[in-house]
Amino acid sequence: MNYKMISRTLGMIFLIYAILMLLPVMVGLLYGDHIHNFLISLGIGGIIGGFLFLQKPSGNELVARDGFVIVGVGWIGISLLGALPFRISGSIPRFVDAFFETVSGLSTTGATIVTDFAGMPHCDMFWRLFNHWIGGMGVLVFIMAVLPMSGAHSMHIMRAEVPGPSVGKLVPRVKRTARILYLIYIGLTIVETLALMICGMRFYDALLHSFSTAGTGGFSTLPDSIAGFGSVTVETVITVFMLLFGVNFNIYYLILIRSFRKAFKNEELAVYIIVVCSAALMIAAGLTRSGMFRFPEAIHQAFFNVATIISTTGFGTVDFTLWPEYCKWILVLLMFCGACAGSTGGGIKLSRLIILFKALRAELVRMIRPRNIYRVQLDQHRVDTETIRAASVFVVFYFILIIVFSVLISFDGLDLATCFTASLSCISNIGPGMTRLIGPAGNFTVFSDRSKLLLSVAMLIGRLEIYPILALFSPRTWRR
Amino acid sequence: MNYKMISRTLGMIFLIYAILMLLPVMVGLLYGDHIHNFLISLGIGGIIGGFLFLQKPSGNELVARDGFVIVGVGWIGISLLGALPFRISGSIPRFVDAFFETVSGLSTTGATIVTDFAGMPHCDMFWRLFNHWIGGMGVLVFIMAVLPMSGAHSMHIMRAEVPGPSVGKLVPRVKRTARILYLIYIGLTIVETLALMICGMRFYDALLHSFSTAGTGGFSTLPDSIAGFGSVTVETVITVFMLLFGVNFNIYYLILIRSFRKAFKNEELAVYIIVVCSAALMIAAGLTRSGMFRFPEAIHQAFFNVATIISTTGFGTVDFTLWPEYCKWILVLLMFCGACAGSTGGGIKLSRLIILFKALRAELVRMIRPRNIYRVQLDQHRVDTETIRAASVFVVFYFILIIVFSVLISFDGLDLATCFTASLSCISNIGPGMTRLIGPAGNFTVFSDRSKLLLSVAMLIGRLEIYPILALFSPRTWRR
Repeated sequence: MNYKMISRTLGMIFLIYAILMLLPVMVGLLYGDHIHNFLISLGIGGIIGGFLFLQKPSGNELVARDGFVIVGVGWIGISLLGALPFRISGSIPRFVDAFFETVSGLSTTGATIVTDFAGMPHCDMFWRLFNHWIGGMGVLVFIMAVLPMSGAHSMHIMRAEVPGPSVGKLVPRVKRTARILYLIYIGLTIVETLALMICGMRFYDALLHSFSTAGTGGFSTLPDSIAGFGSVTVETVITVFMLLFGVNFNIYYLILIRSFRKAFKNEELAVYIIVVCSAALMIAAGLTRSGMFRFPEAIHQAFFNVATIISTTGFGTVDFTLWPEYCKWILVLLMFCGACAGSTGGGIKLSRLIILFKALRAELVRMIRPRNIYRVQLDQHRVDTETIRAASVFVVFYFILIIVFSVLISFDGLDLATCFTASLSCISNIGPGMTRLIGPAGNFTVFSDRSKLLLSVAMLIGRLEIYPILALFSPRTWRR
Repeated sequence: MNYKMISRTLGMIFLIYAILMLLPVMVGLLYGDHIHNFLISLGIGGIIGGFLFLQKPSGNELVARDGFVIVGVGWIGISLLGALPFRISGSIPRFVDAFFETVSGLSTTGATIVTDFAGMPHCDMFWRLFNHWIGGMGVLVFIMAVLPMSGAHSMHIMRAEVPGPSVGKLVPRVKRTARILYLIYIGLTIVETLALMICGMRFYDALLHSFSTAGTGGFSTLPDSIAGFGSVTVETVITVFMLLFGVNFNIYYLILIRSFRKAFKNEELAVYIIVVCSAALMIAAGLTRSGMFRFPEAIHQAFFNVATIISTTGFGTVDFTLWPEYCKWILVLLMFCGACAGSTGGGIKLSRLIILFKALRAELVRMIRPRNIYRVQLDQHRVDTETIRAASVFVVFYFILIIVFSVLISFDGLDLATCFTASLSCISNIGPGMTRLIGPAGNFTVFSDRSKLLLSVAMLIGRLEIYPILALFSPRTWRR
């Protein structure tokens, strides 16, 4: 392992993250809040980052496990640093809670332990939601976009941070790919902010909720989330943007370079649209039949909540844990699915599931007619055995981890459904669970400190797609 | 497809199953019950079986999908036939319930809808528990053991009916393998019956509960299951035999031919013992700490319930749904695991999980050090990619089916944990679920007719290890 190069890259991560704290400082100055908490944290981040950055590596080659270590240690490190301002200002008095909230922010989960929303200064609230935006596209992708780095080794980092079964480079150079991704990300965030302002939101609220939507996070400035704005148009705009941020960013690039045909032939996009529409219609039917809503309202609520779950955002308008059981199960299914690969959403990702379902069908065919040859295809290309194996192993890991974390947090004595959906929700980076305690009307304060730390690990595992965090715990990573 | 040969084999299945009804007839004569229900069913089975058997096939070759069709159609067919006596006698008044109960019997699940245990005639009760014994080792394996069949095609049938990732032929000839398996099965059943009689049970109860233990089923003659006998020695004997029937029968064969070294070097057996002991000790600690039992009683209850779940039997002594949450989660984990391959138990099977965990470790190593070669081994033999793929695909199918059936039965409006554990319990052929409604103190009458039929399908899917039942629904099976 190239320890000096790892240290240098980690230094860059800390420095960039510390510099980003200047934004809440500005917000604090604007609203007249105390800003000493950010200045202290910025100082600490700067010193650690600077010290790490000053290591002079002899070469700049990185192997695969170096990428994992950088991403794993980097994300845990900035989560610790990002929790400091909350702890110092006292807006979240206990460090464990502040750490949970920051991991929840950076991993774009949106599970919260905050109960006193009114008492939180503007700058702290800004920082809370801004972390969603930072975590959505990734700190390292940002570094690759803005700093000169040789392409050869940065691919290992990008592979560890960008979600999806395979990293599609849009253009041959990683640096340019990262820059295009960030430009699309910034562009969509600005458009959403403007759209929300047109619907009558203040600039501050519009911007912060755009950060939260863009990263598919789910934090809100209000205790009752989007419902607090009491505006159907706001909810509709947010529904649309949640769905848009769940789409593979490659599609937007293809649209930008006017490859419309290629963009709309994408199989994952087609499945995404079909899943969203059919899930929303089934739920709307269920809600109408149960008499909870009249049909137009049911459609509106169904689309909002399907969008919030499949994009793994987690905003709330109503308490869906009170819905009919099968409507809740449809949402649980969507919690597993997640959004498209290469989006800011979490979950297993649709393209993995598409590959898997095709592989399962192929397996059944092979069982029935052993002598037939049946190939798995995606977007008219043959999917190789390697990709199928990686996708199935990933899904098996995913299921096992959900169950393992359910068991680990069950020592708090909460019921089976709460533990299971909390674990699922955190690993899929959604936010709310599927029982009253931790649903849209509840929050994660019900868990013990130990469980909060475990769920923090679960959120990071989900955001970084398992391997970088698991690699940190494997002795083979550290062995020469 | 060789339809005539399929028909002939199905005919044999019906005939054998009908002839087995002579046993409850004898029981009925002994106890003075009405036996017309069995005579009518025997007649119907005989006519259908005879008609199917009389088809003269030109050749006796069978391909893989013929094996699936025979096993799938055969099991559904005898479940329908086996339900008739209950319906005709009126001991189970509705046919849907009788079908559910028979599938639960044959698939060795043990989930019951019977509430009036005292009102059921002895012959019906005998038939109910005897189905566990028939289903445990399989009807087709029995046919292969007693009838002359050519070895070439019977392997396809055996592969479809005997559980486990790969069918180990004990001896080169399938017929002799099947015969050895049945002899071990009968031998252990007799030993258990004697042991239970020594503990003071009546012959009738001892025999019936030995049937139930041998098939790892879980039906009992009493409404409160084993607890009804109120004897710690009976519970201990049953604990031991539940664990014994969860062991791969190959081990017993190896012991019989005095290959002790080979028998005790088996990795799956070692894991089985470790899992049972550590799960029981953890649960015993939890029960003692919670103050529910004193330590010796806690150890006793922990071992009984771990044995009942991991062997997928499902006998009850206490209502474990009232235990501390993490004790329940340990049992949920065991519900997934199941027993050893080649035993009468259900679930994913330990050897599949061992292969899978080794493959996941290999995958992590590959991620960390892509240039290293790391092989998966089981019992000192290399596991080929084909077996690993089959095991992972099976587990993914398993998880997906559990979730699909949970969603399908959720329309009854029962809570998430009930639906999830009912689905898991049926697919793993255990019996009780993990909530009060369907736990050891509840039963499956809470479900609607539609859900009972769905759960019947789930039980068959679990018993026949997915493919034979799925194959029936695939158009490719029926296409020329």
